[in-house]
Amino acid sequence: MKAIYITRRETFNAAHKLWREDWSEQKNWEVFGKCSNHNWHGHNFELFVTVKGLPNPDTGFVINLKDLSVLLKEQVIEELDHRNLNLDVPFMKDVLASTENLAIAIWDRIYLPIQKVGGELVKIKLVETENNYVEYYGGKEPI
Amino acid sequence: MKAIYITRRETFNAAHKLWREDWSEQKNWEVFGKCSNHNWHGHNFELFVTVKGLPNPDTGFVINLKDLSVLLKEQVIEELDHRNLNLDVPFMKDVLASTENLAIAIWDRIYLPIQKVGGELVKIKLVETENNYVEYYGGKEPI
Amino acid sequence: MKAIYITRRETFNAAHKLWREDWSEQKNWEVFGKCSNHNWHGHNFELFVTVKGLPNPDTGFVINLKDLSVLLKEQVIEELDHRNLNLDVPFMKDVLASTENLAIAIWDRIYLPIQKVGGELVKIKLVETENNYVEYYGGKEPI
Amino acid sequence: MKAIYITRRETFNAAHKLWREDWSEQKNWEVFGKCSNHNWHGHNFELFVTVKGLPNPDTGFVINLKDLSVLLKEQVIEELDHRNLNLDVPFMKDVLASTENLAIAIWDRIYLPIQKVGGELVKIKLVETENNYVEYYGGKEPI
Amino acid sequence: MKAIYITRRETFNAAHKLWREDWSEQKNWEVFGKCSNHNWHGHNFELFVTVKGLPNPDTGFVINLKDLSVLLKEQVIEELDHRNLNLDVPFMKDVLASTENLAIAIWDRIYLPIQKVGGELVKIKLVETENNYVEYYGGKEPI
Amino acid sequence: MKAIYITRRETFNAAHKLWREDWSEQKNWEVFGKCSNHNWHGHNFELFVTVKGLPNPDTGFVINLKDLSVLLKEQVIEELDHRNLNLDVPFMKDVLASTENLAIAIWDRIYLPIQKVGGELVKIKLVETENNYVEYYGGKEPI
Repeated sequence: MKAIYITRRETFNAAHKLWREDWSEQKNWEVFGKCSNHNWHGHNFELFVTVKGLPNPDTGFVINLKDLSVLLKEQVIEELDHRNLNLDVPFMKDVLASTENLAIAIWDRIYLPIQKVGGELVKIKLVETENNYVEYYGGKEPI
Repeated sequence: MKAIYITRRETFNAAHKLWREDWSEQKNWEVFGKCSNHNWHGHNFELFVTVKGLPNPDTGFVINLKDLSVLLKEQVIEELDHRNLNLDVPFMKDVLASTENLAIAIWDRIYLPIQKVGGELVKIKLVETENNYVEYYGGKEPI
Repeated sequence: MKAIYITRRETFNAAHKLWREDWSEQKNWEVFGKCSNHNWHGHNFELFVTVKGLPNPDTGFVINLKDLSVLLKEQVIEELDHRNLNLDVPFMKDVLASTENLAIAIWDRIYLPIQKVGGELVKIKLVETENNYVEYYGGKEPI
Repeated sequence: MKAIYITRRETFNAAHKLWREDWSEQKNWEVFGKCSNHNWHGHNFELFVTVKGLPNPDTGFVINLKDLSVLLKEQVIEELDHRNLNLDVPFMKDVLASTENLAIAIWDRIYLPIQKVGGELVKIKLVETENNYVEYYGGKEPI
Repeated sequence: MKAIYITRRETFNAAHKLWREDWSEQKNWEVFGKCSNHNWHGHNFELFVTVKGLPNPDTGFVINLKDLSVLLKEQVIEELDHRNLNLDVPFMKDVLASTENLAIAIWDRIYLPIQKVGGELVKIKLVETENNYVEYYGGKEPI
Repeated sequence: MKAIYITRRETFNAAHKLWREDWSEQKNWEVFGKCSNHNWHGHNFELFVTVKGLPNPDTGFVINLKDLSVLLKEQVIEELDHRNLNLDVPFMKDVLASTENLAIAIWDRIYLPIQKVGGELVKIKLVETENNYVEYYGGKEPI
């Protein structure tokens, strides 16, 4: 009955822009401001992934962080690190490259793989700058 | 159904003291310790404001962070930055200038304005030092 | 009705290893990796303790942080700081020295003492490295 | 005789890539690795600018940080923030967009303007990620 | 011949204002801006004190950090923490309470006491906010 | 003539104690305090390695950070990470495991290897806790 929450941080550096092809230059600027710069800009993103579970009595672990880190690197970091979120990332195709949408896409990508190694994904926190971040709980109420 | 939470950080530097006129010098010291120093002390405060919503399909945004930042600067930061929380801040009048009370006052001040720009305020985190902070959810259970 | 959450950070530096006497060298390595090193390793731990309550109308405080800090130093930090979690800590005896188990043990140790000074412990966050931490809510749903 | 050094931090988010048109795809990869990704990547850069001087007896200031901040925003941040270092920045034209070269270019751009407001630029520190940064002292021995 | 530099961090929270009695309201505002607010503002200051020496062959220490910390707490932190830099601090009397002047005053206060416990003070770094700090080397060229 | 300084951060977690076999229990306690705990304690160390050079006109690099990182991982991190500094590290044999001595030992270990890949090591910064760190310049005056 001792549910506990463990979080792993991973980092990646990526370029993106907030831009809609079906909007005028002016409208893109009005809505997205500097983030609409044609030639991209970028960030050092920090990703925090939280898994819920009971500590395994044999290991004391909710989940083996080595396994979780390998999974995150394969499923997420290799796809995003030193990439362009608008151009290079299949699972962000046809999605506006906002931090919100990226967090949701990462959730959808890792929920089942984490379940397969015995963990329950309950939260993603994605930090874009020291001044803003988003949190996503799979559409459920937050932990 | 993809509710997501976005957080904006703002900072301000302010002076305050914890002091009750209706208490003796000695009682103020016993309860508030160094924080009762007559001539004030101060902090670099960090304010984290969290808004809940669905990403707008047109923009990918829960709320436009530019709008949120302008609102916070007008409603909160201009009132608190380089101020004395006990003397200079109308919305802290007659309230003990504890971090708890300040967080509640900030919530009460920005809840409706944020609602007007289409967001739902769900959390305030107010960091006073690297060793203490408070979180407030409008009196509801926390997110 | 204005429940608010206040958090105090304390730090301690400790050695530990993840190791089971009843497992072979090889199995310990497979499960615990570098953390199973015979001769120990260590961390600068950060402990965040969150207490819920209504601000006392007389003081503006949920709990007096001086009291909370003294309590944490006596009950936790003096027991853990510059110690070996496997060898030196009575309340970790016979428990695998994982971050998860340490967080639970700290909770069990401070829940009643905090209650006695008038606070309700609702969360412990224990940071082991910049890349991983655990959170524990007494087995309840998280705040 | 009381020379003192004052530092102002500014931040900007930018995209870049490390890439030479006159090299093959393969050579670019061998030398620049992931940083050569065609479609760019990006960072949250932190710029620390250090000015040396005697505190003005009238103000206690080596330099007025408001003036320094305005100067940096006009000369550097507006040129770099939410930009592509390879494509959008006139003063980086024909220069490999390495952190080293960017630091030197920033120095050359602000040395005289800082001198005009009465300060002596002595150091630039440019942080690209939490794991790497460069420092430049105008080619002189470091402070 | 193995000179090495060891640094101790201490923190204090203080109020101050930048204000000259012999200047008009308007001139104070023009020069000091928000920092001239009559009723004070404040900061969480971080003080980094660097001592140079050879590691003692008996202890491996340049200086015993316990001794250095006690000295700093007695000479500096107790005088500044939860104080008003303009009103409460004898060694800042008649000095404009700028970060520059405070760093110099701290140097002058601890240079000889550190020498008496066998260390050579070579640098003070005083951080006022995440965006500005000063460094002082006793008027000598920096380390 | 454009010498520039580039710094790479690496991290490792290790156990150690400050203890002399030829001293009594009491003397060890008097000098080393809690750091003399028989059963060890530990830290998350941060190592910053600074290399000086001219940016290579072909690459814009003082040194390729990938090469530097590989070198540091092979020469230093693999030897120290998840180790006991007193027991597990050949190059710390017969040396008191103080931060000062560890910084000097790391310098001696990597100076020539860095020279072989074309860089000049000029500084090591070794952070033991948020409150103390040492800097070493090979016994020369600091940069």
